[in-house]
Amino acid sequence: MNDIRVTVLGLGYIGLPTSALIASRKIKTAGIDINPGIVDTINRGEIHISEPDLAGLVRYVVENGLLSASVSPSPSDVFLITVPTPILPDKSPDISHVMSCVESITPCLSPSNLLIIESTCPVNTTSEIKDHIYNKRPDLAGRLYIAYCPERVLPGRIIYELENNDRVIGGINPESAQKAMGFYSLFVKGKLHPTDAKTAEMCKLVENSYRDANIAFANELSILCDHLSIDVFELISLTNRHPRVNILKPSPGVGGHCIAVDPYFLSSRYPEYTRMITLSRQLNNYKTQWVIEKIRNTALEFQHKNSKTPLIALMGISFKPDIDDLRESPSLHIARTLSKTHNITVSEPNIALYDGLKLSSPDSAVREADIIAFLVAHKEFKNINIPGTKTVLDFCNVTKE
Amino acid sequence: MNDIRVTVLGLGYIGLPTSALIASRKIKTAGIDINPGIVDTINRGEIHISEPDLAGLVRYVVENGLLSASVSPSPSDVFLITVPTPILPDKSPDISHVMSCVESITPCLSPSNLLIIESTCPVNTTSEIKDHIYNKRPDLAGRLYIAYCPERVLPGRIIYELENNDRVIGGINPESAQKAMGFYSLFVKGKLHPTDAKTAEMCKLVENSYRDANIAFANELSILCDHLSIDVFELISLTNRHPRVNILKPSPGVGGHCIAVDPYFLSSRYPEYTRMITLSRQLNNYKTQWVIEKIRNTALEFQHKNSKTPLIALMGISFKPDIDDLRESPSLHIARTLSKTHNITVSEPNIALYDGLKLSSPDSAVREADIIAFLVAHKEFKNINIPGTKTVLDFCNVTKE
Repeated sequence: MNDIRVTVLGLGYIGLPTSALIASRKIKTAGIDINPGIVDTINRGEIHISEPDLAGLVRYVVENGLLSASVSPSPSDVFLITVPTPILPDKSPDISHVMSCVESITPCLSPSNLLIIESTCPVNTTSEIKDHIYNKRPDLAGRLYIAYCPERVLPGRIIYELENNDRVIGGINPESAQKAMGFYSLFVKGKLHPTDAKTAEMCKLVENSYRDANIAFANELSILCDHLSIDVFELISLTNRHPRVNILKPSPGVGGHCIAVDPYFLSSRYPEYTRMITLSRQLNNYKTQWVIEKIRNTALEFQHKNSKTPLIALMGISFKPDIDDLRESPSLHIARTLSKTHNITVSEPNIALYDGLKLSSPDSAVREADIIAFLVAHKEFKNINIPGTKTVLDFCNVTKE
Repeated sequence: MNDIRVTVLGLGYIGLPTSALIASRKIKTAGIDINPGIVDTINRGEIHISEPDLAGLVRYVVENGLLSASVSPSPSDVFLITVPTPILPDKSPDISHVMSCVESITPCLSPSNLLIIESTCPVNTTSEIKDHIYNKRPDLAGRLYIAYCPERVLPGRIIYELENNDRVIGGINPESAQKAMGFYSLFVKGKLHPTDAKTAEMCKLVENSYRDANIAFANELSILCDHLSIDVFELISLTNRHPRVNILKPSPGVGGHCIAVDPYFLSSRYPEYTRMITLSRQLNNYKTQWVIEKIRNTALEFQHKNSKTPLIALMGISFKPDIDDLRESPSLHIARTLSKTHNITVSEPNIALYDGLKLSSPDSAVREADIIAFLVAHKEFKNINIPGTKTVLDFCNVTKE
């Protein structure tokens, strides 16, 4: 089966690592992206995103002619859709990029082709795509293999997790699931679990909703503990000595393109069945506002006491520690909001420049500022030397870890 | 330190195993309970609750003169309060049993005594008890060691978990925490974590609120999946192959005297800070109603189709599998509710008799009934032979496990 042609549509955070991993198994892979800049970058053997181990892998597969990028698809044996599915302003899912991919490949399809959707999708999307293709191409009706196979990787560990995590393989019928299992077994070492497409679609949405709900529990707890003058981080380290308790870490909110987005795919469609999923999104969004208020109040107190406007250092603006990814980042939102009304300086060791925000090194931010608010637990902030005269707000426990 | 006298107040599900475990270390232990029947039972070397390994342990320590029960306390070196703290009809905590214990021991206290509260209590209760005692006994002010040390055991594994789980030891001051650590080290093998009393009180409440929230997530999911015609148990087994996801099992609700109760200690006092904790209680209570409706609808459909009233077998009424404990049991509530309007038979292998409900063996219940609803995943229900003609509602996945 190595003698197949694979086409991956969408060369972003999932599509590019997936293309490179497939190509690394000596499988001829075509990567498709509508952005010509991205296509050119990849064809030079370079990458446009930051992810450990990715640069070397892409350079290797491009230089060896295993991966080539292009702006439009050609006939292939396997088509893999990995484009983003964001949410619209009303929080409902936007699957237009997926549907554009489907449109673009429909003329290229032949009988026995395998079409796999990896993009996060509302329940029943795979079935609707099947109907859509068979309507446009009646000659193919019942002759394609179609499956929904969500990824479940952690940014910063994508290559490792793509290869080693278990995967759920949801076919529109058992033959499609089997065909897709055969394909993934070419490059995935984790266990492959066959099911139907609808259950696989639901898996992806539920996994991220579960993570969001558990972060919301930690964030609700952090606000309650602040009210009760209890150190929430100490509390959680103690509760987690219970054999059946594993509370996640509170944070200034939830960012990224999965956990902060996917739950809306369920809550917008089934509001009466998703009270906890809906509340979790609200709580995690509220936590960001709460952090802003906490910093504002601290600034007011400082001004009151010292009769001067404080300089506030905001430590970290990426959406999680030790990456440069700013997608849906609550810390970036905090920095942007406070920059309008307060005198701030921002330290983000993973980014050299950000339009509209003054960036400084961790040491100079801590030295110059009056109030230091730690928003992201970057490794550069651990063991940082903070003069005792400074007011410290540590929303991620990075100074105590 | 084995040469101390220990008094345990309250000989219920926690107090009796704890007394027996302490006594088994050759420590003279007095067990106090206001119920003379319980006192007599224990002094005969017998027990009034069902818990694996407990009967033999109690017989051994009573026969060897290490544990003796009584209705009122005498002077002692250590006092341990393990009485229940239920909720009042308005869902606020009722700590009256704890306060009665405090009243009864106050005249017995001497300087350097160690007073430990294990009962679940609202935040700040230990500090309030300290003030209360020192007001009544000014001669002792500042001369007692007082600590809050919650247990975190699983019914059915109490003896093992009392000995092996880590414990949080919250002193009213560091000396009290140290003194209590010394005491617990006599019979606990798990790690002991010192903290302040308030944080320890909060730990207990948060641990059970966390469990409740995660069960609520699973129960919300079960209702959503029913709506979408997805098998929630298959879905969860697939999502849990994700390295960072561990969704609990849906059930007909939450029972017992901890998870179904403790979250109210937070939600009733701090409603504006506990939106998720409050919703979790609501969702888990709602799940029980939903199961009742599901059974009612199935009965109606049966009647419609067969023109006769169905006999409904309800399989399990204890609050969790393989125990006889009915406290706050949702399945018992389901059975009682349906018994008023429907023709039911109940099978509960762990109980011989229950007032007002007709009990039958699993086999005869399954043979006789038209509709079989599995409520609790007792081991007797696994691999049970169900004729294909029966309508099965499996709310705990026991028939497929």
